[in-house]
Amino acid sequence: MSTETGCAHCKGADEDRLWADETCRVVLVHETGFEGWCRVIWHDHIRELSDLTPKQRDHVMAVVSAVETGLIAKLAPVKINIASLGTAAPHLHFHVIPRFVDDPAFPDPVWLPAKRTSSRKLPDGFAQSMAIHLQQQLK
Amino acid sequence: MSTETGCAHCKGADEDRLWADETCRVVLVHETGFEGWCRVIWHDHIRELSDLTPKQRDHVMAVVSAVETGLIAKLAPVKINIASLGTAAPHLHFHVIPRFVDDPAFPDPVWLPAKRTSSRKLPDGFAQSMAIHLQQQLK
Repeated sequence: MSTETGCAHCKGADEDRLWADETCRVVLVHETGFEGWCRVIWHDHIRELSDLTPKQRDHVMAVVSAVETGLIAKLAPVKINIASLGTAAPHLHFHVIPRFVDDPAFPDPVWLPAKRTSSRKLPDGFAQSMAIHLQQQLK
Repeated sequence: MSTETGCAHCKGADEDRLWADETCRVVLVHETGFEGWCRVIWHDHIRELSDLTPKQRDHVMAVVSAVETGLIAKLAPVKINIASLGTAAPHLHFHVIPRFVDDPAFPDPVWLPAKRTSSRKLPDGFAQSMAIHLQQQLK
């Protein structure tokens, strides 16, 4: 496996992992005000989407889509945002972010300064039910 | 074809179109300081990635990847950013954005306020050579 010293996504410490296979993993990010934010992280230290083979690309996007359908089913967000930026951390990962009218940045991108605080909480058992959804969708 | 009145991506007016097939199109966005920014727009007024069939999803991501390899080959950016947000305009589209250390927001996401101005210009014939790249990659 290709790894790079100092890369947080290679290290993968302190992750709240919902699902994984031999190629990638899904983690729940605990970003204040943006409850339900997930990240799909390719295990290998790959830089760009186009560094994957077509088969690997189809697979990682199937995982992104399964995260999306889980978030829609369990949280009923207004919109899902998907982003693979990595400008500062060039290790392939996708943010999959449920958006709500009362989230801190809505309707702007989540990276903009907060306009409001959000008291939204995840429903009980969210992480476990997402894990079950991903297992069912991706088997 | 599914369209919605008032949706800019359904209308598709004044686009600098580089490539299209029966499902989606690639346009060059003229965003000051972010020369080379492309958008892959699904023709139908589809809301989320997971509204596509797996075959459609694989196809649109192959188009995104072909835009990425074209931008890398022609502009040698530091990093590519990919994002499908659509919080305000919920019609499936992907931003494919070449990032440079001297772009207005580097290394932050492009949506943050500009830190600097950029005098970067696209090389002569860029749009035409991207169009040829996409035709070759996606035939």
